[in-house]
Amino acid sequence: MKISLLGFLFLSFSFFAKAHQQDSVVIKRLFDLSLTNGESYENLRVLCKTIGHRLSGSPQAAKAVVWGKKVMENAGFDKVYLQEVMVPHWVRGTKEAAALTLMNNPKTKDGMPVTQKMKISVLGGSVGTNGITTGEVIEVKDLAELDQLGEANIKGKIVFYNRPFDPTYIQTFKAYGHCVDQRVDGASKAAKYGAKGVIIRSMAHGHGDHPHTGSVRYTDSLPKIPAAAISTVSADLIADELAKGRKVFFSMEFDCQLLPDVLSYNVIGEMKGSVYPDQVISVGGHLDSWDIGEGAHDDGAGCVQSMEALRMLKVLGVKPRHTLRAVLFMNEENGLRGGKKYAELASASGEKHVAALESDRGGFVPRGFSIEGSAAQVKWLESLSPLLKSYDLHYFEEGGTGADISPLKKYFPDIVLFGFVPDSQRYFDHHHAETDVFENVNKRELELGAASMAALVYLIDYHLLK
Amino acid sequence: MKISLLGFLFLSFSFFAKAHQQDSVVIKRLFDLSLTNGESYENLRVLCKTIGHRLSGSPQAAKAVVWGKKVMENAGFDKVYLQEVMVPHWVRGTKEAAALTLMNNPKTKDGMPVTQKMKISVLGGSVGTNGITTGEVIEVKDLAELDQLGEANIKGKIVFYNRPFDPTYIQTFKAYGHCVDQRVDGASKAAKYGAKGVIIRSMAHGHGDHPHTGSVRYTDSLPKIPAAAISTVSADLIADELAKGRKVFFSMEFDCQLLPDVLSYNVIGEMKGSVYPDQVISVGGHLDSWDIGEGAHDDGAGCVQSMEALRMLKVLGVKPRHTLRAVLFMNEENGLRGGKKYAELASASGEKHVAALESDRGGFVPRGFSIEGSAAQVKWLESLSPLLKSYDLHYFEEGGTGADISPLKKYFPDIVLFGFVPDSQRYFDHHHAETDVFENVNKRELELGAASMAALVYLIDYHLLK
Repeated sequence: MKISLLGFLFLSFSFFAKAHQQDSVVIKRLFDLSLTNGESYENLRVLCKTIGHRLSGSPQAAKAVVWGKKVMENAGFDKVYLQEVMVPHWVRGTKEAAALTLMNNPKTKDGMPVTQKMKISVLGGSVGTNGITTGEVIEVKDLAELDQLGEANIKGKIVFYNRPFDPTYIQTFKAYGHCVDQRVDGASKAAKYGAKGVIIRSMAHGHGDHPHTGSVRYTDSLPKIPAAAISTVSADLIADELAKGRKVFFSMEFDCQLLPDVLSYNVIGEMKGSVYPDQVISVGGHLDSWDIGEGAHDDGAGCVQSMEALRMLKVLGVKPRHTLRAVLFMNEENGLRGGKKYAELASASGEKHVAALESDRGGFVPRGFSIEGSAAQVKWLESLSPLLKSYDLHYFEEGGTGADISPLKKYFPDIVLFGFVPDSQRYFDHHHAETDVFENVNKRELELGAASMAALVYLIDYHLLK
Repeated sequence: MKISLLGFLFLSFSFFAKAHQQDSVVIKRLFDLSLTNGESYENLRVLCKTIGHRLSGSPQAAKAVVWGKKVMENAGFDKVYLQEVMVPHWVRGTKEAAALTLMNNPKTKDGMPVTQKMKISVLGGSVGTNGITTGEVIEVKDLAELDQLGEANIKGKIVFYNRPFDPTYIQTFKAYGHCVDQRVDGASKAAKYGAKGVIIRSMAHGHGDHPHTGSVRYTDSLPKIPAAAISTVSADLIADELAKGRKVFFSMEFDCQLLPDVLSYNVIGEMKGSVYPDQVISVGGHLDSWDIGEGAHDDGAGCVQSMEALRMLKVLGVKPRHTLRAVLFMNEENGLRGGKKYAELASASGEKHVAALESDRGGFVPRGFSIEGSAAQVKWLESLSPLLKSYDLHYFEEGGTGADISPLKKYFPDIVLFGFVPDSQRYFDHHHAETDVFENVNKRELELGAASMAALVYLIDYHLLK
């Protein structure tokens, strides 16, 4: 049969239009389901309120594994299983106290020193103080400044890293990216010049009165010195005092420690592919959290959204073409052991891992998705814009996707990775802090995220150019 | 001089590219200024925390007028003035109590009735109960249902309007639009069939435990009966009871009243146009609020953003081509008298009002702008997308803009109206409720809104196709 070019174009268009129409219907149903009978919010409530925070190796992390497995079993996935992974086991301990001493304070009688308690949050992985660590405070704005100051100015002191977030970055993750070296590498850099300890301005915008924790990374060849975060309000207080030319002393005491590694698990649920059962598309978040707050946005949200994405596709009777997998990764916060193990085992299994989506930027209102893939795949993602516009999804850009799925690239060079991108404005108000609790997650925002992720998984499964 | 078509195109392109580049610089500076040294958040704090809610005619509304004038005088605008407007003066009174009586409740001994207090918020404009109003509750889901039930079923009862928000609307204002007839027209519709009073499910998503107020509109020819909102949680409780076939009685008592009109003001600040001094572009929000909460999102946010937009253009030395005007409208909530007066006086002054922008959808993270204008003007707004994309502004659509600027259309048929469109997901959590307080406004979200509005005012002033 011969058809004219015009006829061919017409047929192609019809096919495209029909596929597009069908996609629209599926996507609308996913959003309707999430917003009317979604389970993501209730699941998050249970995780946050009955288990709470869950640092790798903790009893709560073990409970969270059982919880995640049960949620997926209840959803009726084809297969739910655990993946063994040894994780670090750092414990904050029972003491966590600090005090600030202001010298020559004109507010006091005769300029006598005045001491006040200060709230700290020990950085994850820090050594304890082994008694009380006290020292004069020296403020720096970046790591390079220590090289200029040298041992003469630093030895025996407590280095205070105080470079604030740059508020002019519209995407708050950029502000974080430009500051976080202070928290991660600041301790060893200061230890190199003989500092006794470090305190870090919290990785947050503006003026909050609670400290934000996070991991510190020691250089093995250097002494390990204690490291803690202080709130942005406390940081401004110290900086003001120093700016007036007055001396400031800081004392801190904490007994955190690193215990032997513990056996833990990634939690995985699967729906078998009807066309490509050996080709896998995963959607995931991380199950562990820091040991303050409830890990609601970071990353309880990503966990419940990932499970919900698969559950909703199942409820709607969408037949997966590839094998779809929801993955709750263990130990993103202080080791990435779960992400690494998952990639290693995926490779060893002989399966082809074609795509992965990660949600680890909080349960805020969706903006869109980032992608790491070929030029054609980037174009494909961009082409979804008209289909998803009415759900306020508009961000479809090449860029970083997620920490837990990044190890897959090593084993599957052709894999395409996606990151769920919610609005970032409020993320660092709560990140790694006591305010990262269920109450600060908005139900509709969380549900819209779950639906957006389900829609993308469906579109990848049915339409992605491989 | 003759130039080739190619040369002409090249010159046009160069001009365009240069203009575009310059715009980019101005817009970046506006965002930087708002996010580093913005005053919108501090202004909102003062409005909310030192004045609080400010219903038309109240002493707080009078204080807010003084406050707004002072903020604009401090900003150094060319001219700051008040515009007289008579406004309604409804007062909630001192009593606002209600109780629910559940009959045949199996939980009680012998099925005895059980009475419990219930939180209500009298609807603005409602008559008082003149003693206690008690009646059996009859539930309806829409106004048409009353025609079917008729006097036989309604007379002497309290009509309970219980149609909930449809959660599947992505834009929450649509859900509101499909429910609000119950609150606005429900009382007179029920009075027509002899009801004693009405209670309304709050105009809100989900399960909140606080009532949301708002205005009721009486039909003059019908008896005016008392009307109050109950929380969505209370509404579900009553509906559950009725669904079990049990009788429910409701009692309420309140002494609100409508006092004589009061003299109040729109507050206006102006920057004189350098090219078209007689042509006006306005940006505004409304200064009055309901008399619970602090009117932080509704519409303290719009007020501080509007003043901030002009202030920032002044600080950056951007020379206005048209006359720019920040307008704080009085009485949007229960009369729109300020909006009507402003339009009337603008017309009488002989000026040409070319464009108006309104912010009255809360101080949430910006999405973009709506427009009411010619097809070419809609295209013009859409054409801003590339310029504003990096600020996460993506919504540029024809549609409703704002209540206070709508009267301008009557006098200036060629005017183009714009509405600031922030994300709508959390708006109805706080709308007209005790939780609409300063603490529920995020600093960055508010500042991004102010910058977005300033950017649009600048682009209208410099580039809008009239």
